[in-house]
Amino acid sequence: MNKIYNPDPSQWLEILKRPTKTVEDIEETVSQIFSEVVKNGDAAITKYTELFDGFRPEETRVTAMEVDESRNRISQELKDAIFLAKTNIEKFHAAQKTERISVETSPGVKCWQEKRPIQKVGLYIPGGTAPLFSTILMLAVPAALAGCKEIIMCTPPDREGKVHPAILYAADLCGVTRMYKVGGIQAIAGMTFGTETIPKVYKIFGPGNQFVTVAKQLATRHNVAIDMPAGPSELLVVADETANAAFVASDLLSQAEHGADSQVILVSTSKNLIDEVEKEIENQLKDLPRKEIAEKAIANSKLIYLDNENDALEMINEYGPEHFIICTGNNDFYAENVQNAGSVFIGNYTPESAGDYASGTNHTLPTNGYAKQYSGVNLDSFMKSMTFQRISEEGIKNIGPAIELMAEAEGLQAHKNAVSLRLKELE
Amino acid sequence: MNKIYNPDPSQWLEILKRPTKTVEDIEETVSQIFSEVVKNGDAAITKYTELFDGFRPEETRVTAMEVDESRNRISQELKDAIFLAKTNIEKFHAAQKTERISVETSPGVKCWQEKRPIQKVGLYIPGGTAPLFSTILMLAVPAALAGCKEIIMCTPPDREGKVHPAILYAADLCGVTRMYKVGGIQAIAGMTFGTETIPKVYKIFGPGNQFVTVAKQLATRHNVAIDMPAGPSELLVVADETANAAFVASDLLSQAEHGADSQVILVSTSKNLIDEVEKEIENQLKDLPRKEIAEKAIANSKLIYLDNENDALEMINEYGPEHFIICTGNNDFYAENVQNAGSVFIGNYTPESAGDYASGTNHTLPTNGYAKQYSGVNLDSFMKSMTFQRISEEGIKNIGPAIELMAEAEGLQAHKNAVSLRLKELE
Repeated sequence: MNKIYNPDPSQWLEILKRPTKTVEDIEETVSQIFSEVVKNGDAAITKYTELFDGFRPEETRVTAMEVDESRNRISQELKDAIFLAKTNIEKFHAAQKTERISVETSPGVKCWQEKRPIQKVGLYIPGGTAPLFSTILMLAVPAALAGCKEIIMCTPPDREGKVHPAILYAADLCGVTRMYKVGGIQAIAGMTFGTETIPKVYKIFGPGNQFVTVAKQLATRHNVAIDMPAGPSELLVVADETANAAFVASDLLSQAEHGADSQVILVSTSKNLIDEVEKEIENQLKDLPRKEIAEKAIANSKLIYLDNENDALEMINEYGPEHFIICTGNNDFYAENVQNAGSVFIGNYTPESAGDYASGTNHTLPTNGYAKQYSGVNLDSFMKSMTFQRISEEGIKNIGPAIELMAEAEGLQAHKNAVSLRLKELE
Repeated sequence: MNKIYNPDPSQWLEILKRPTKTVEDIEETVSQIFSEVVKNGDAAITKYTELFDGFRPEETRVTAMEVDESRNRISQELKDAIFLAKTNIEKFHAAQKTERISVETSPGVKCWQEKRPIQKVGLYIPGGTAPLFSTILMLAVPAALAGCKEIIMCTPPDREGKVHPAILYAADLCGVTRMYKVGGIQAIAGMTFGTETIPKVYKIFGPGNQFVTVAKQLATRHNVAIDMPAGPSELLVVADETANAAFVASDLLSQAEHGADSQVILVSTSKNLIDEVEKEIENQLKDLPRKEIAEKAIANSKLIYLDNENDALEMINEYGPEHFIICTGNNDFYAENVQNAGSVFIGNYTPESAGDYASGTNHTLPTNGYAKQYSGVNLDSFMKSMTFQRISEEGIKNIGPAIELMAEAEGLQAHKNAVSLRLKELE
């Protein structure tokens, strides 16, 4: 662990620097697979599933029978836990629904804004060691609330061609309309271009390894939107002597176990707390099953001491953490003044895990400093806002002359004509 | 003009196809200029301004004196028109402000969502033949309402190093905090990386030629967000025998004068109206100063007859027009059921020009079919939503066991530990 005391603001950028990766060589692989999927459709999907997942699928679409079976293969306790989480996520995202906003801006000029669902969305759920069924809740619940008509899910099969039952169970419970056992770049290609069996979607959501990340980025060149650019997950905790060092250590470790490249930062105005947290991390680390991963992330972690809370706040806003935990004697100060953070966890009994699973907030959040300009996934991520206007004869008389003047000043005569014709007709 | 009668749905995609462009060679130019701006800062900005705009600037920042002078160089009538437009845009965008959304999802688990302004935004305003001061209103007004702290504007100088006074006047009026006489790729590079004089921003807005468009797209690889991907402007009108053919023609022409690549489509359930509109277009085209541009766009335009309104609606949703004008005997049917459109103009006295300038809606809208998944610029475009949660001792007891179960099922032991430690402490 790197302990840093009162760094000069000129050094902050360097200290807070995230590792960057070159993606040039991945891009070539992605382009290659994209062109093959465009050309050969399902045949290309099959080819790459066999190559990357070690399984040659006859059918990539998950059958109703597989979904049925999944229900019997997970415990009632886990079903209850998933139900609680789903209920909370639904409550929080349903509250985000906005009504039509309507304004008569000038007499006779009625303008309104309405949000309508994105018709077709695709959810990508990674496979690998951890079956991230919680991510399905975070994506499918708001998609269904928004009213998306087609909610597609792609997730890679294991070498036997199976998908973890909790993934199928959660997807079915949350309203996914079609599920495919397809992963990696080929899944993103399938949802971007469409194949004989996989539908083309308008927006792709969800986490993934660096191949999936680059594939999503390149998909945006082909008329598909994505939830947000991705990077390694990260947590910044600000804590002082009122914090519980064991709790803080456990939160930092829960971030560290995600991956060796996870970003873990503690900012504190108490040197004592920093030392205690350091000890606690060493203690707790020993028994973790994902110890090796967590150790690597912790080795790159930073424990930063700053003299005062204003500096701490400024540094936090400079970093823009994905997850931001506040455990201090002055929590409101940080909560009210933080400008750049994905999701904020306040107080000793609010671990990041709560938001990862069951409190109701979304866990798909901006990393890599993107909290400065991106929202985490929310209900609006599955909708687009459209504007409408209806102008009466009185209305065009009221604003028409201003339009004529402005259009003329911009040198756009036909824009002016469209108004002049109408005004003349009303004379 | 291409008249098409009752095309088979299997042909729709081909008929509605937008022209695509290769941007490979532009990308190289952009990459080159980006690296030079990273390396040489202002010196590179100066070099490329001289190369592309034919003027070697000593100072790129607009001075207070230049802003003052601009006030005397435009007429009182134009100032009044700009003021009316600004007032309407303010009214409509201020109404989009959302309050904090707060939900206690389980007893003791308080979650809320708040929107906070993006701290630093950059607005790009093209130069060239038409001084698009209206775009400043559309971008700077919501930026100021959102509370963005730094609102930077870049716009190219003419060969004398001047900027059109209406641009400076509008920018000053609408709360732009710093203005730069820099255009093209070098302007996007300056706002993406920052130079000695141009600040780095978090999100870049605004239209531009294909060089600017590609530069904005590539900027997204360098931790900057953009408003939306861009393409040529487009208008689809649906009209029947209740429409005024002259009005419809004037609207189609106002779109056509934007550029030779503008997309202009009329969908109608009346063959008669199609013929009348065709005649009107020929008539009105003659006297346009931008006739040559408009003629080229009109040559590629499509007048499509369909037997019934359901087919018309389906085709419109398939296309997803940036601007959508409805002049029929059944306006509500289209307005209520359109799923994919940037901005909708309803009725005979609602020309697209109204929304382009002064009705209050935004004119920065998704083109190229992106209305299927992107919103036009609105107040939220200048903010990001953040979530917060505060969990009490009771709260963690309520949801803690579910979190433990789910974390364990995902194989994330440290996530579980963060909760278990707290629950143990509360025993």
